[in-house]
Amino acid sequence: MEFSSKLLENAVYEMSQLPGIGKRTALRLVLHMLKQPSEQTLRLTSALQRVRNDIKFCSNCHNISDVVLCEICANPKRDESLVCVVEDIRDVMAIENTGQYKGLYHVLGGKISPMEGIGPQNLTISSLLTKVKEGIIKELIFALSSTMEGDTTNFYIYKQLEGTEVKTSTIARGIAVGDELEYADEVTLGRSIINRIPFENSLKSS
Amino acid sequence: MEFSSKLLENAVYEMSQLPGIGKRTALRLVLHMLKQPSEQTLRLTSALQRVRNDIKFCSNCHNISDVVLCEICANPKRDESLVCVVEDIRDVMAIENTGQYKGLYHVLGGKISPMEGIGPQNLTISSLLTKVKEGIIKELIFALSSTMEGDTTNFYIYKQLEGTEVKTSTIARGIAVGDELEYADEVTLGRSIINRIPFENSLKSS
Ligand SMILES: [Zn+2]
Ligand SMILES: [Zn+2]
Repeated sequence: MEFSSKLLENAVYEMSQLPGIGKRTALRLVLHMLKQPSEQTLRLTSALQRVRNDIKFCSNCHNISDVVLCEICANPKRDESLVCVVEDIRDVMAIENTGQYKGLYHVLGGKISPMEGIGPQNLTISSLLTKVKEGIIKELIFALSSTMEGDTTNFYIYKQLEGTEVKTSTIARGIAVGDELEYADEVTLGRSIINRIPFENSLKSS
Repeated sequence: MEFSSKLLENAVYEMSQLPGIGKRTALRLVLHMLKQPSEQTLRLTSALQRVRNDIKFCSNCHNISDVVLCEICANPKRDESLVCVVEDIRDVMAIENTGQYKGLYHVLGGKISPMEGIGPQNLTISSLLTKVKEGIIKELIFALSSTMEGDTTNFYIYKQLEGTEVKTSTIARGIAVGDELEYADEVTLGRSIINRIPFENSLKSS
Protein backbone atom coordinates (compact mmCIF):
# COMPACT_ATOMS: atom_id res chain seq x y z
CA MET A 1 0.00 0.00 0.00
CA GLU A 2 1.40 3.36 -1.12
CA PHE A 3 0.24 6.27 1.01
CA SER A 4 0.16 9.90 -0.08
CA SER A 5 0.66 10.99 3.54
CA LYS A 6 3.06 9.83 6.25
CA LEU A 7 0.56 10.85 8.95
CA LEU A 8 -2.08 8.66 7.36
CA GLU A 9 0.33 5.79 6.82
CA ASN A 10 1.42 5.92 10.45
CA ALA A 11 -2.15 6.00 11.80
CA VAL A 12 -3.13 3.06 9.59
CA TYR A 13 -0.05 1.13 10.69
CA GLU A 14 -0.78 1.61 14.41
CA MET A 15 -4.44 0.75 13.93
CA SER A 16 -3.53 -2.44 12.06
CA GLN A 17 -1.49 -3.60 15.07
CA LEU A 18 -4.79 -4.42 16.77
CA PRO A 19 -5.82 -8.09 16.50
CA GLY A 20 -8.17 -8.83 13.61
CA ILE A 21 -7.70 -5.39 12.04
CA GLY A 22 -5.99 -5.65 8.65
CA LYS A 23 -4.51 -2.73 6.72
CA ARG A 24 -7.63 -2.26 4.60
CA THR A 25 -9.92 -2.13 7.63
CA ALA A 26 -7.50 0.19 9.42
CA LEU A 27 -7.52 2.54 6.42
CA ARG A 28 -11.32 2.49 6.31
CA LEU A 29 -11.51 3.34 10.02
CA VAL A 30 -8.97 6.17 9.81
CA LEU A 31 -10.66 7.68 6.73
CA HIS A 32 -13.94 7.54 8.62
CA MET A 33 -12.38 9.48 11.50
CA LEU A 34 -11.14 12.12 9.07
CA LYS A 35 -14.72 12.68 7.92
CA GLN A 36 -16.06 13.03 11.47
CA PRO A 37 -15.60 16.11 13.68
CA SER A 38 -12.20 16.08 15.37
CA GLU A 39 -13.94 15.97 18.80
CA GLN A 40 -14.91 12.37 18.06
CA THR A 41 -11.29 11.31 17.56
CA LEU A 42 -10.37 13.21 20.71
CA ARG A 43 -13.05 11.38 22.72
CA LEU A 44 -11.79 8.03 21.42
CA THR A 45 -8.12 8.68 22.04
CA SER A 46 -8.62 10.10 25.52
CA ALA A 47 -10.93 7.23 26.52
CA LEU A 48 -8.26 4.77 25.37
CA GLN A 49 -5.50 6.66 27.17
CA ARG A 50 -7.48 6.82 30.38
CA VAL A 51 -8.47 3.16 30.41
CA ARG A 52 -4.89 2.11 29.66
CA ASN A 53 -3.28 4.34 32.29
CA ASP A 54 -5.83 4.35 35.09
CA ILE A 55 -7.38 0.89 35.00
CA LYS A 56 -7.19 -1.13 38.20
CA PHE A 57 -7.61 -4.81 38.89
CA CYS A 58 -9.62 -5.92 41.93
CA SER A 59 -7.20 -6.97 44.65
CA ASN A 60 -9.38 -9.97 45.51
CA CYS A 61 -10.65 -11.42 42.20
CA HIS A 62 -8.47 -9.62 39.58
CA ASN A 63 -11.55 -8.40 37.73
CA ILE A 64 -11.12 -5.04 36.00
CA SER A 65 -12.30 -2.32 38.34
CA ASP A 66 -12.06 1.42 38.89
CA VAL A 67 -11.51 0.84 42.63
CA VAL A 68 -9.35 -1.44 44.78
CA LEU A 69 -12.16 -3.91 45.54
CA CYS A 70 -14.60 -4.54 42.67
CA GLU A 71 -18.39 -4.13 43.07
CA ILE A 72 -18.92 -7.87 43.14
CA CYS A 73 -16.32 -8.57 45.85
CA ALA A 74 -17.52 -5.55 47.84
CA ASN A 75 -21.16 -6.72 47.79
CA PRO A 76 -22.02 -8.32 51.20
CA LYS A 77 -24.93 -10.22 49.60
CA ARG A 78 -22.58 -12.32 47.47
CA ASP A 79 -21.55 -15.73 48.79
CA GLU A 80 -17.82 -15.59 49.43
CA SER A 81 -17.60 -19.33 50.04
CA LEU A 82 -18.29 -19.97 46.34
CA VAL A 83 -15.74 -18.89 43.73
CA CYS A 84 -16.07 -19.25 39.98
CA VAL A 85 -12.71 -19.50 38.21
CA VAL A 86 -12.75 -17.83 34.78
CA GLU A 87 -10.29 -16.91 32.10
CA ASP A 88 -11.02 -13.24 31.63
CA ILE A 89 -13.43 -10.47 32.46
CA ARG A 90 -15.64 -11.21 29.45
CA ASP A 91 -16.56 -14.46 31.19
CA VAL A 92 -17.46 -12.55 34.37
CA MET A 93 -19.69 -10.29 32.29
CA ALA A 94 -21.32 -13.26 30.55
CA ILE A 95 -22.07 -15.08 33.83
CA GLU A 96 -23.24 -11.90 35.61
CA ASN A 97 -25.60 -11.38 32.69
CA THR A 98 -27.44 -14.62 33.52
CA GLY A 99 -28.40 -13.16 36.92
CA GLN A 100 -28.20 -16.71 38.33
CA TYR A 101 -24.86 -16.72 40.10
CA LYS A 102 -24.43 -15.28 43.60
CA GLY A 103 -20.86 -16.29 44.43
CA LEU A 104 -17.60 -14.46 43.70
CA TYR A 105 -15.12 -14.87 40.85
CA HIS A 106 -11.45 -15.42 40.32
CA VAL A 107 -10.09 -14.08 37.02
CA LEU A 108 -7.03 -16.05 35.90
CA GLY A 109 -6.06 -13.68 33.10
CA GLY A 110 -5.72 -16.47 30.54
CA LYS A 111 -5.08 -20.20 30.47
CA ILE A 112 -1.95 -22.31 30.51
CA SER A 113 -0.67 -22.53 26.94
CA PRO A 114 2.85 -23.81 26.31
CA MET A 115 2.38 -22.88 22.63
CA GLU A 116 1.94 -19.21 23.52
CA GLY A 117 4.50 -19.34 26.32
CA ILE A 118 1.89 -18.89 29.06
CA GLY A 119 2.72 -20.87 32.20
CA PRO A 120 1.01 -21.02 35.62
CA GLN A 121 3.26 -18.17 36.83
CA ASN A 122 1.76 -15.84 34.19
CA LEU A 123 -1.73 -16.34 35.60
CA THR A 124 -3.23 -15.44 38.99
CA ILE A 125 -3.12 -19.06 40.20
CA SER A 126 -0.90 -18.48 43.26
CA SER A 127 -3.25 -15.75 44.44
CA LEU A 128 -6.14 -18.23 44.10
CA LEU A 129 -4.26 -20.86 46.14
CA THR A 130 -3.52 -18.29 48.84
CA LYS A 131 -7.23 -17.46 49.08
CA VAL A 132 -8.14 -21.15 49.28
CA LYS A 133 -5.68 -21.66 52.16
CA GLU A 134 -7.44 -18.92 54.14
CA GLY A 135 -10.30 -21.44 54.45
CA ILE A 136 -13.27 -19.22 53.57
CA ILE A 137 -13.82 -20.75 50.12
CA LYS A 138 -15.86 -23.98 50.23
CA GLU A 139 -16.18 -24.58 46.51
CA LEU A 140 -14.36 -23.64 43.31
CA ILE A 141 -16.34 -23.76 40.06
CA PHE A 142 -14.10 -24.18 37.03
CA ALA A 143 -15.69 -22.23 34.17
CA LEU A 144 -12.86 -22.16 31.66
CA SER A 145 -13.58 -22.90 28.03
CA SER A 146 -13.45 -26.63 27.32
CA THR A 147 -10.41 -26.53 25.08
CA MET A 148 -7.16 -28.39 25.65
CA GLU A 149 -5.67 -25.32 27.32
CA GLY A 150 -8.74 -24.89 29.51
CA ASP A 151 -8.65 -28.54 30.59
CA THR A 152 -4.91 -28.33 31.29
CA THR A 153 -5.42 -25.24 33.45
CA ASN A 154 -8.33 -26.81 35.36
CA PHE A 155 -6.27 -29.91 36.03
CA TYR A 156 -3.18 -27.96 37.08
CA ILE A 157 -5.19 -26.02 39.67
CA TYR A 158 -6.99 -29.19 40.78
CA LYS A 159 -3.66 -30.88 41.53
CA GLN A 160 -2.44 -27.86 43.48
CA LEU A 161 -5.53 -28.10 45.70
CA GLU A 162 -4.56 -31.55 47.03
CA GLY A 163 -4.58 -31.55 50.80
CA THR A 164 -7.14 -28.73 51.03
CA GLU A 165 -10.81 -29.15 51.96
CA VAL A 166 -12.18 -27.20 49.01
CA LYS A 167 -14.78 -28.83 46.76
CA THR A 168 -14.26 -28.46 43.01
CA SER A 169 -16.90 -28.50 40.31
CA THR A 170 -17.10 -27.66 36.65
CA ILE A 171 -20.01 -26.02 34.86
CA ALA A 172 -22.41 -28.39 33.09
CA ARG A 173 -21.84 -28.39 29.40
CA GLY A 174 -24.96 -27.65 27.54
CA ILE A 175 -22.46 -25.55 25.65
CA ALA A 176 -20.79 -27.24 22.68
CA VAL A 177 -17.23 -28.45 23.33
CA GLY A 178 -14.72 -25.90 22.07
CA ASP A 179 -17.18 -23.00 22.15
CA GLU A 180 -16.22 -19.80 23.91
CA LEU A 181 -18.19 -19.06 27.07
CA GLU A 182 -18.96 -15.50 26.12
CA TYR A 183 -20.90 -16.55 23.02
CA ALA A 184 -23.22 -18.91 24.91
CA ASP A 185 -26.82 -17.76 25.30
CA GLU A 186 -27.84 -16.69 28.79
CA VAL A 187 -30.25 -19.53 29.49
CA THR A 188 -27.76 -22.25 28.60
CA LEU A 189 -25.00 -20.56 30.54
CA GLY A 190 -27.19 -19.93 33.60
CA ARG A 191 -28.37 -23.53 33.61
CA SER A 192 -24.85 -24.89 33.22
CA ILE A 193 -23.82 -23.11 36.41
CA ILE A 194 -26.80 -24.41 38.38
CA ASN A 195 -26.15 -27.97 37.10
CA ARG A 196 -22.45 -27.95 37.78
CA ILE A 197 -20.84 -31.32 38.49
CA PRO A 198 -17.93 -32.32 40.73
CA PHE A 199 -14.67 -31.85 38.81
CA GLU A 200 -13.68 -35.51 39.43
CA ASN A 201 -16.77 -36.63 37.52
CA SER A 202 -15.75 -34.59 34.49
CA LEU A 203 -12.41 -36.43 34.47
CA LYS A 204 -14.15 -39.81 34.40
CA SER A 205 -16.43 -38.91 31.53
CA SER A 206 -13.70 -37.80 29.14
CA MET B 1 -23.43 -5.35 28.58
CA GLU B 2 -22.67 -4.69 32.26
CA PHE B 3 -19.19 -3.32 32.86
CA SER B 4 -17.27 -3.51 36.12
CA SER B 5 -15.42 -0.31 35.23
CA LYS B 6 -16.62 3.04 33.89
CA LEU B 7 -13.24 3.65 32.24
CA LEU B 8 -13.56 0.35 30.38
CA GLU B 9 -17.19 0.98 29.47
CA ASN B 10 -16.34 4.40 28.10
CA ALA B 11 -13.41 3.14 26.02
CA VAL B 12 -15.54 0.32 24.59
CA TYR B 13 -18.34 2.77 23.81
CA GLU B 14 -16.07 5.16 21.92
CA MET B 15 -14.42 2.29 20.05
CA SER B 16 -17.82 0.92 19.02
CA GLN B 17 -18.67 4.26 17.38
CA LEU B 18 -16.34 3.25 14.55
CA PRO B 19 -18.13 1.73 11.53
CA GLY B 20 -18.25 -2.07 11.55
CA ILE B 21 -16.96 -2.31 15.14
CA GLY B 22 -19.61 -3.80 17.43
CA LYS B 23 -19.50 -3.75 21.24
CA ARG B 24 -18.02 -7.24 21.44
CA THR B 25 -15.23 -6.43 19.01
CA ALA B 26 -14.60 -3.12 20.78
CA LEU B 27 -14.28 -4.94 24.11
CA ARG B 28 -11.88 -7.48 22.60
CA LEU B 29 -9.72 -4.67 21.20
CA VAL B 30 -9.65 -2.68 24.44
CA LEU B 31 -8.83 -5.79 26.51
CA HIS B 32 -6.02 -6.51 24.08
CA MET B 33 -4.62 -3.00 24.64
CA LEU B 34 -4.73 -3.54 28.40
CA LYS B 35 -2.48 -6.59 28.00
CA GLN B 36 0.06 -4.74 25.83
CA PRO B 37 2.63 -2.23 27.12
CA SER B 38 1.04 1.22 27.58
CA GLU B 39 3.50 2.63 24.99
CA GLN B 40 1.55 0.79 22.31
CA THR B 41 -1.71 2.55 23.23
CA LEU B 42 0.18 5.84 23.35
CA ARG B 43 1.57 5.27 19.85
CA LEU B 44 -1.92 4.51 18.53
CA THR B 45 -3.66 7.44 20.18
CA SER B 46 -1.02 9.98 19.20
CA ALA B 47 -0.93 8.72 15.60
CA LEU B 48 -4.74 9.13 15.43
CA GLN B 49 -4.59 12.58 17.02
CA ARG B 50 -1.91 13.72 14.64
CA VAL B 51 -3.59 12.46 11.50
CA ARG B 52 -6.91 13.99 12.56
CA ASN B 53 -5.47 17.39 13.48
CA ASP B 54 -2.66 17.85 10.97
CA ILE B 55 -3.92 16.17 7.82
CA LYS B 56 -4.09 18.32 4.70
CA PHE B 57 -5.91 17.87 1.44
CA CYS B 58 -4.11 18.69 -1.81
CA SER B 59 -5.31 22.09 -3.02
CA ASN B 60 -5.46 20.81 -6.59
CA CYS B 61 -6.86 17.25 -6.46
CA HIS B 62 -8.18 16.97 -2.85
CA ASN B 63 -6.09 13.87 -2.25
CA ILE B 64 -4.91 13.44 1.35
CA SER B 65 -1.43 14.95 1.65
CA ASP B 66 1.03 16.20 4.25
CA VAL B 67 1.76 19.25 2.09
CA VAL B 68 -0.28 21.83 0.15
CA LEU B 69 0.26 20.19 -3.24
CA CYS B 70 0.34 16.37 -3.20
CA GLU B 71 3.24 14.37 -4.67
CA ILE B 72 1.23 13.40 -7.72
CA CYS B 73 0.14 16.95 -8.58
CA ALA B 74 3.65 18.23 -7.88
CA ASN B 75 5.27 15.70 -10.21
CA PRO B 76 6.17 17.43 -13.54
CA LYS B 77 6.23 14.04 -15.31
CA ARG B 78 2.50 13.51 -14.78
CA ASP B 79 0.15 14.55 -17.60
CA GLU B 80 -1.96 17.40 -16.28
CA SER B 81 -4.26 17.31 -19.33
CA LEU B 82 -5.67 13.97 -18.14
CA VAL B 83 -7.68 13.82 -14.90
CA CYS B 84 -9.17 10.71 -13.36
CA VAL B 85 -12.26 11.44 -11.23
CA VAL B 86 -12.51 9.14 -8.21
CA GLU B 87 -14.61 8.83 -5.11
CA ASP B 88 -11.97 8.71 -2.42
CA ILE B 89 -8.29 8.33 -1.79
CA ARG B 90 -8.50 4.54 -1.65
CA ASP B 91 -9.27 4.66 -5.37
CA VAL B 92 -6.20 6.83 -5.98
CA MET B 93 -4.11 4.26 -4.09
CA ALA B 94 -5.62 1.40 -6.09
CA ILE B 95 -4.99 3.06 -9.47
CA GLU B 96 -1.48 4.24 -8.49
CA ASN B 97 -0.74 0.66 -7.56
CA THR B 98 -1.25 -0.47 -11.17
CA GLY B 99 1.66 1.75 -12.26
CA GLN B 100 -0.19 2.29 -15.57
CA TYR B 101 -1.70 5.72 -15.14
CA LYS B 102 0.30 8.90 -15.72
CA GLY B 103 -2.37 11.60 -15.44
CA LEU B 104 -3.64 13.44 -12.36
CA TYR B 105 -6.67 12.77 -10.15
CA HIS B 106 -9.65 14.59 -8.78
CA VAL B 107 -10.99 13.20 -5.49
CA LEU B 108 -14.71 13.92 -5.12
CA GLY B 109 -14.93 12.85 -1.48
CA GLY B 110 -17.95 10.61 -2.09
CA LYS B 111 -20.78 10.28 -4.57
CA ILE B 112 -24.19 11.88 -4.88
CA SER B 113 -26.57 9.95 -2.65
CA PRO B 114 -29.97 11.46 -1.83
CA MET B 115 -30.51 8.56 0.61
CA GLU B 116 -27.51 9.62 2.69
CA GLY B 117 -28.21 13.31 2.17
CA ILE B 118 -25.10 13.83 0.00
CA GLY B 119 -25.69 16.34 -2.79
CA PRO B 120 -23.30 17.83 -5.39
CA GLN B 121 -22.52 20.70 -2.99
CA ASN B 122 -21.07 18.20 -0.47
CA LEU B 123 -18.52 16.97 -3.00
CA THR B 124 -15.61 18.75 -4.72
CA ILE B 125 -17.54 19.06 -8.01
CA SER B 126 -17.41 22.86 -8.28
CA SER B 127 -13.65 22.79 -7.82
CA LEU B 128 -13.46 20.26 -10.69
CA LEU B 129 -15.57 22.49 -12.94
CA THR B 130 -13.36 25.47 -12.13
CA LYS B 131 -10.29 23.47 -13.17
CA VAL B 132 -11.96 22.36 -16.39
CA LYS B 133 -12.78 25.98 -17.29
CA GLU B 134 -9.08 26.86 -16.99
CA GLY B 135 -8.69 24.86 -20.23
CA ILE B 136 -5.65 22.73 -19.32
CA ILE B 137 -7.63 19.51 -18.88
CA LYS B 138 -8.29 17.70 -22.17
CA GLU B 139 -9.94 14.57 -20.80
CA LEU B 140 -11.78 13.49 -17.67
CA ILE B 141 -11.85 9.77 -16.88
CA PHE B 142 -14.79 8.82 -14.67
CA ALA B 143 -13.62 6.02 -12.39
CA LEU B 144 -16.43 5.90 -9.85
CA SER B 145 -17.87 2.57 -8.79
CA SER B 146 -20.61 1.43 -11.14
CA THR B 147 -23.43 1.67 -8.65
CA MET B 148 -26.55 3.79 -9.00
CA GLU B 149 -24.90 6.57 -6.97
CA GLY B 150 -21.74 6.35 -9.05
CA ASP B 151 -23.71 6.56 -12.31
CA THR B 152 -25.78 9.49 -10.98
CA THR B 153 -22.60 11.36 -10.04
CA ASN B 154 -20.94 10.69 -13.40
CA PHE B 155 -24.03 11.90 -15.20
CA TYR B 156 -24.40 15.00 -13.04
CA ILE B 157 -20.82 16.05 -13.78
CA TYR B 158 -21.21 15.16 -17.45
CA LYS B 159 -24.21 17.51 -17.76
CA GLN B 160 -22.30 20.31 -16.02
CA LEU B 161 -19.55 20.01 -18.64
CA GLU B 162 -21.86 20.97 -21.52
CA GLY B 163 -20.37 23.82 -23.51
CA THR B 164 -16.79 22.91 -22.56
CA GLU B 165 -14.28 21.22 -24.88
CA VAL B 166 -13.27 18.50 -22.40
CA LYS B 167 -13.48 14.87 -23.51
CA THR B 168 -15.06 12.44 -21.05
CA SER B 169 -14.41 8.72 -20.77
CA THR B 170 -15.18 5.99 -18.31
CA ILE B 171 -12.91 3.13 -17.34
CA ALA B 172 -13.51 -0.14 -19.17
CA ARG B 173 -15.36 -2.57 -17.00
CA GLY B 174 -13.53 -5.81 -16.77
CA ILE B 175 -14.61 -5.29 -13.18
CA ALA B 176 -17.98 -6.79 -12.22
CA VAL B 177 -20.83 -4.30 -12.03
CA GLY B 178 -21.39 -3.18 -8.46
CA ASP B 179 -17.87 -4.12 -7.31
CA GLU B 180 -15.77 -1.58 -5.46
CA LEU B 181 -12.75 -0.32 -7.35
CA GLU B 182 -10.33 -0.84 -4.50
CA TYR B 183 -10.96 -4.61 -4.45
CA ALA B 184 -10.18 -5.08 -8.14
CA ASP B 185 -6.94 -6.84 -8.99
CA GLU B 186 -4.17 -4.65 -10.40
CA VAL B 187 -4.12 -6.17 -13.88
CA THR B 188 -7.86 -5.75 -14.44
CA LEU B 189 -7.83 -2.25 -13.05
CA GLY B 190 -4.77 -1.20 -15.06
CA ARG B 191 -6.27 -2.59 -18.25
CA SER B 192 -9.63 -0.92 -17.64
CA ILE B 193 -7.91 2.46 -17.56
CA ILE B 194 -5.98 1.82 -20.76
CA ASN B 195 -9.18 0.62 -22.50
CA ARG B 196 -11.37 3.45 -21.33
CA ILE B 197 -14.29 4.35 -23.57
CA PRO B 198 -16.01 7.68 -24.31
CA PHE B 199 -18.60 8.35 -21.62
CA GLU B 200 -21.36 8.76 -24.22
CA ASN B 201 -20.77 5.17 -25.34
CA SER B 202 -21.31 3.90 -21.81
CA LEU B 203 -24.70 5.62 -21.79
CA LYS B 204 -25.73 3.88 -25.01
CA SER B 205 -24.75 0.43 -23.82
CA SER B 206 -26.78 0.54 -20.63
ZN1 LIG C 1 -13.32 -8.44 42.81
ZN1 LIG D 1 -2.95 16.57 -5.68
